[in-house]
Amino acid sequence: MITDDTDAEMMQAYMREMRVYVDDFIRSFLFASIPTETLITRAAKSSIFAGGKRLRPILCLTAADSLDGPRQQILPWCLALELVHTYTLVHDDLPALDNDDTRRGFPTCHVTYGEPMAILAGLGLLAAAFSSPVSLAAKYQTPSLIRRLFSLLSTASGGRGVLAGQVADLLAESHDIPQEEMLFIHHHKTALLISAALQIGALVAGGREDDIERLRKFGELFGLAFQIQDDILDVIGDEEKLGKPVGSDIRSHKATFITLLGLERAQMFLHTVAERARQHLIDFSGDPTKLLWLLDYVINRDH
Amino acid sequence: MITDDTDAEMMQAYMREMRVYVDDFIRSFLFASIPTETLITRAAKSSIFAGGKRLRPILCLTAADSLDGPRQQILPWCLALELVHTYTLVHDDLPALDNDDTRRGFPTCHVTYGEPMAILAGLGLLAAAFSSPVSLAAKYQTPSLIRRLFSLLSTASGGRGVLAGQVADLLAESHDIPQEEMLFIHHHKTALLISAALQIGALVAGGREDDIERLRKFGELFGLAFQIQDDILDVIGDEEKLGKPVGSDIRSHKATFITLLGLERAQMFLHTVAERARQHLIDFSGDPTKLLWLLDYVINRDH
Repeated sequence: MITDDTDAEMMQAYMREMRVYVDDFIRSFLFASIPTETLITRAAKSSIFAGGKRLRPILCLTAADSLDGPRQQILPWCLALELVHTYTLVHDDLPALDNDDTRRGFPTCHVTYGEPMAILAGLGLLAAAFSSPVSLAAKYQTPSLIRRLFSLLSTASGGRGVLAGQVADLLAESHDIPQEEMLFIHHHKTALLISAALQIGALVAGGREDDIERLRKFGELFGLAFQIQDDILDVIGDEEKLGKPVGSDIRSHKATFITLLGLERAQMFLHTVAERARQHLIDFSGDPTKLLWLLDYVINRDH
Repeated sequence: MITDDTDAEMMQAYMREMRVYVDDFIRSFLFASIPTETLITRAAKSSIFAGGKRLRPILCLTAADSLDGPRQQILPWCLALELVHTYTLVHDDLPALDNDDTRRGFPTCHVTYGEPMAILAGLGLLAAAFSSPVSLAAKYQTPSLIRRLFSLLSTASGGRGVLAGQVADLLAESHDIPQEEMLFIHHHKTALLISAALQIGALVAGGREDDIERLRKFGELFGLAFQIQDDILDVIGDEEKLGKPVGSDIRSHKATFITLLGLERAQMFLHTVAERARQHLIDFSGDPTKLLWLLDYVINRDH
């Protein structure tokens, strides 16, 4: 937990440093691997560089760092995680799905490039996610490790992960759902990829099985906390910082932790979830400091 | 070239046998890996079992067989190829792209399951394509071979492959395009995945580099021949056998080899392309018989 201003400043500096580090790699990789710019690569790239926090790559790197893992071997997986995350945003925003016109203050992909191109750009991002880690990482990793890393990435990004969450979300539209159903949606849409990011980082770093398991559980609760804070910000956030109108969930009659619990109980639930997440790192064999910083960043963020 | 009725019968029997073999594997893999049926898995599965010819898996297996490759190690890649092919059909048919209501005589995925579910099912198919070969094949193949196989699959299915073709196709809609542009579209939309199928089969079979290169070129011309026959069938095909109305390309003002060359010259071009394809297998070190059968099947098919 952030205990004083010095810690908070160090955490902010860490986030900035890691974001620049991740961005540099993503930029250099994409420029090297996409020699000629076309409409689809422009649509895909503009979505990748539309102001994302790079949370999943940073979690992946931080998990690896906490176990003294080799950064060069982690970076391809960081890129893959961000590509998967970006594809889910591009497709989530489509007219046939959430029909969102802006994200982080920018027009969404289909607004700028048209719906057909946005569909194709999203698919391109997903396909690229699976090619980049293999093309870069296969030389470092054993077949059994590649198999396990891929399984984490593909489960989180496919029909048993984020897509299962999106389907449940679609079916839940505009009507009340029990808490269990909302937990299912967020577990699949958000938490699995965050948890995969942490596990991938630790696996590439050669982490022990019990530590991988701790990070899996920590990640699932981290993802849940992320989503509760998202719902809270939709009510009490600052429109300028969020880059989207406040209250949009309520206007679209979306079931959120606020509609389910009310603001005050949602805030209490957020702190309970964060505390349960921290518990899982008590016996972690690596250095959990920065992982805990990231959790604090997420539950205290204003955008 | 098919020389008499006996050859034609043997070829038909071979196609049937291979299709059953591929279907059995696809069915058993999908049933084992998808324990609970949901709306998205139902949408995805119904697209996979909607009467496809399994041409890409059959090409992959035939290339491997021609070099005495181990079938069990090829099958996961066959599945991946069919999953990629199916995702391209589901997304191609979407209202925002080709807006097709029927395919092979069946309602298309978005007609049965709605557009949002069809988008998600297509993404699920693409994600599954990348997980199935790794989860099954990583135990057999070396990291450098995995890397190469993945590179073939992901290039053909991503922004430098089928998606580049779809973008060019979109931009070419409803106006005349030069032959060069049409060749670009078909090379990317059709030929690259067919060529990848052949190369993947040969690589898993431990094929020599010169044979891989022969199959790459053979595959690219095979894919072109496939597309020319597609355009010809749109003019002279039998609606019942095709499972779609004849003349739909003309009605939608699509540029085809018929609009470009006329029927007679398109038929001559088809035979020239097929002959050039055959030339590439003259020095092939394996047994090319069945690969040539498949080429004859494709240029003589009636659906």
